[in-house]
Amino acid sequence: MGQDGFTAQKRGSSTLPTSTAPNGGSRSSRSLLRGGGGNRQIHKTLNNIKITILCGLVTILVLRGTIGFGSLSSDNDLENQAIIEETNRILAEIRSDKDPDDPEENLDQTTINLNDTYSLGAKISNWDEERSLWLSRNQDFPNIVNGKARILLVTGSPPSPCDNAIGDHYLLKSIKNKIDYCRIHGIEIVYNMAHLDKELAGYWAKLPLIRRLMLSHPEVEWIWWMDSDALFTDMVFEIPLSKYKDHNMVIHGYPDLLFNQKSWIALNTGSFLFRNCQWSLDLLDEWAPMGPKGPVREEAGKILTANLKGRPAFEADDQSALIYLLITKTEWMKKVFVENSYFLHGYWAGLVDRYEEMMEKYHPGLGDERWPFVTHFVGCKPCGSYGDYPVQRCLSSMERAFNFADNQVLKLYGFRHRGLLSPKIKRIRNETVTPLENVDQFDIRHSAQGTSN
Amino acid sequence: MGQDGFTAQKRGSSTLPTSTAPNGGSRSSRSLLRGGGGNRQIHKTLNNIKITILCGLVTILVLRGTIGFGSLSSDNDLENQAIIEETNRILAEIRSDKDPDDPEENLDQTTINLNDTYSLGAKISNWDEERSLWLSRNQDFPNIVNGKARILLVTGSPPSPCDNAIGDHYLLKSIKNKIDYCRIHGIEIVYNMAHLDKELAGYWAKLPLIRRLMLSHPEVEWIWWMDSDALFTDMVFEIPLSKYKDHNMVIHGYPDLLFNQKSWIALNTGSFLFRNCQWSLDLLDEWAPMGPKGPVREEAGKILTANLKGRPAFEADDQSALIYLLITKTEWMKKVFVENSYFLHGYWAGLVDRYEEMMEKYHPGLGDERWPFVTHFVGCKPCGSYGDYPVQRCLSSMERAFNFADNQVLKLYGFRHRGLLSPKIKRIRNETVTPLENVDQFDIRHSAQGTSN
Repeated sequence: MGQDGFTAQKRGSSTLPTSTAPNGGSRSSRSLLRGGGGNRQIHKTLNNIKITILCGLVTILVLRGTIGFGSLSSDNDLENQAIIEETNRILAEIRSDKDPDDPEENLDQTTINLNDTYSLGAKISNWDEERSLWLSRNQDFPNIVNGKARILLVTGSPPSPCDNAIGDHYLLKSIKNKIDYCRIHGIEIVYNMAHLDKELAGYWAKLPLIRRLMLSHPEVEWIWWMDSDALFTDMVFEIPLSKYKDHNMVIHGYPDLLFNQKSWIALNTGSFLFRNCQWSLDLLDEWAPMGPKGPVREEAGKILTANLKGRPAFEADDQSALIYLLITKTEWMKKVFVENSYFLHGYWAGLVDRYEEMMEKYHPGLGDERWPFVTHFVGCKPCGSYGDYPVQRCLSSMERAFNFADNQVLKLYGFRHRGLLSPKIKRIRNETVTPLENVDQFDIRHSAQGTSN
Repeated sequence: MGQDGFTAQKRGSSTLPTSTAPNGGSRSSRSLLRGGGGNRQIHKTLNNIKITILCGLVTILVLRGTIGFGSLSSDNDLENQAIIEETNRILAEIRSDKDPDDPEENLDQTTINLNDTYSLGAKISNWDEERSLWLSRNQDFPNIVNGKARILLVTGSPPSPCDNAIGDHYLLKSIKNKIDYCRIHGIEIVYNMAHLDKELAGYWAKLPLIRRLMLSHPEVEWIWWMDSDALFTDMVFEIPLSKYKDHNMVIHGYPDLLFNQKSWIALNTGSFLFRNCQWSLDLLDEWAPMGPKGPVREEAGKILTANLKGRPAFEADDQSALIYLLITKTEWMKKVFVENSYFLHGYWAGLVDRYEEMMEKYHPGLGDERWPFVTHFVGCKPCGSYGDYPVQRCLSSMERAFNFADNQVLKLYGFRHRGLLSPKIKRIRNETVTPLENVDQFDIRHSAQGTSN
């Protein structure tokens, strides 16, 4: 409604000042000049009438612009209008809380010195011993449950509403998608909405968060970070953890791009796993120093752009920093598994248009290009400003990915989406008096159990 | 930004047509009348200049209204403007999917006959036998895990974005709150965003959903429905299931209001539990027939208003229907536990302003008026249109409830919100080299385990 008024107003403005007002005004004055002294009074009245009509016109045009046409016909829109305005005031209030020069905030704002390197927190050096001791003392918080290592999936979004209204809706669909996958596969979720460390804002925020969660959840064996713009699109596939028993970090990427081409997209930090151990804490400590916002991040950005192939000039980001760290200090690679046999991260642009083809030819559980495990909307910032891709393409692609995944979940309940772009669902089976046959046939966890063993 | 332009425009409009344009116009004509024939040419020019300036003014005022002041200084806002407009087009597209005269939709639209009673699905009569047989055959899906009955928390929201932009943000905070509580207490979550049954839309949608989930999740012992506008505000408290071993439904309410006063608010269906058993399926079958939208629901509404104390005249709602069913067919009460010793549902208005007092005097784990288990924002439809309460009060109260609960979760990590209205957090403990001491001291699950046994 607000936007209707908005566009209506635009139309109004284009015709309003340029034509109506001035011509009307000058025409009336011209008529006066032509007119003789006798009928000046009539002309004056005529002129005033013209001006009055003109004023009426202007008023209508502007009113129309301000509160929209509908409101001239119904009070309903005026109410909506009031709601919209009140909501925005509150939105503004909540946002204003982000005010950087809030005195309280500055209390624990540490001033950055380019010389002293930033630290994620008190140095911990005996985590493996401490943790295993704790595990032995807390048998009811085992790190292995039913033969499966305990995984904590970590994701999140900003504390305040998105700049773009629809952003929150896709954050909601994104977490619903993760809730479904994690319920089916027995994975716990932490959804973070707080800024733990002001220095490491933005894409760097995951580092202090991951560290904090390792130290607060000793029972967790693997911490799995996933961006809010990444969706599970294979609800059956499970991460083959046994494959990583000798590794502490699992990340999607390509060794050739990493070591031969030194490409800034050799790895993707939108979805990766860390083992809860001393090695991971140490890697985080080495990874973090390029993160502090301001001069440090700016300077680091120049180093990264100078050393990584294809990297545009901008402040240091966590992905480039990790790549740079791994190619300059290769000893870390001993415990890093660079995975590309399935899509732990899958770049959306190449996948979203092929879902129908996949549904025709393949089945969930493959996790690779035939049925991608994760579809990651790199460059589509649904909650921020849209930079790299057109809004429409991003939103409709996210809707398709969500419904593609949701169909795999709804199957157990006997439904599917009318189409990949439709939020509406339809039955795929008739109601039965023997529902448990469907459970045995369609509950993903039966097949999931199969794959996991 | 769009809204900035909006309000700016309003200011513009109030001064624009009434003062500037007409006075300007008439003043110029008046000056012409006073002027002698000789210097008419000068006056004419002067007059045209005045009109030109006036036009400029009008143009600026209207432009300012259309694209906001900022855009006159930066192109950035023009981009945002484009984004806002594009986003709204997409929003409209997605919403348009709700179009009721979609031919495909009408295929499975069953025509309602006031005479034949509505059914939730194929009648199932031997669920208890079938389910126990299934459980015995599927030992790896036990209904009791570590001595605790398996609970499935069910909540949800509409498939499409909220009418009110900020609604989705509070749906997000609401599910984050539930994810936290359910992770801490080992409860699984199903978040529904689909309309399973077109007849039972709105507040009735929970009935077919609960039935569907019972039949598809035989391993679940209790299905716990919770509205999207209800938040956990005691993260420690656990439902005392042992208390309900002889009951199949647990709902918050007051027996006196129910049986003596027949009040339409005697029970609240915003948060209640159903045991997964034949009795529950039968109750759902008896509960549903007042639900089908259209004439059935309208007629039923009249019966409910006529029989329930304090009920305004409106279509049948699930809560009134349940109350009516229980007071007219009291045999159902044998298995219904009407709970009010803690807030399985807690009416927000009486609670949100007392959080500071509670933090001062009491501690989580009590669940009652001293520290409410659930704070339910009855009448605050964050995702719909705001009816019963002012927007500001609803939103700020929800923000307070969310942060009040979030503080209990953040404590383990060493943080708390700056204030109950602030999304920003601050440290409450310094970083330590012995983090496991804090885990033992602050992990709610240790105390939770205590209460659950």
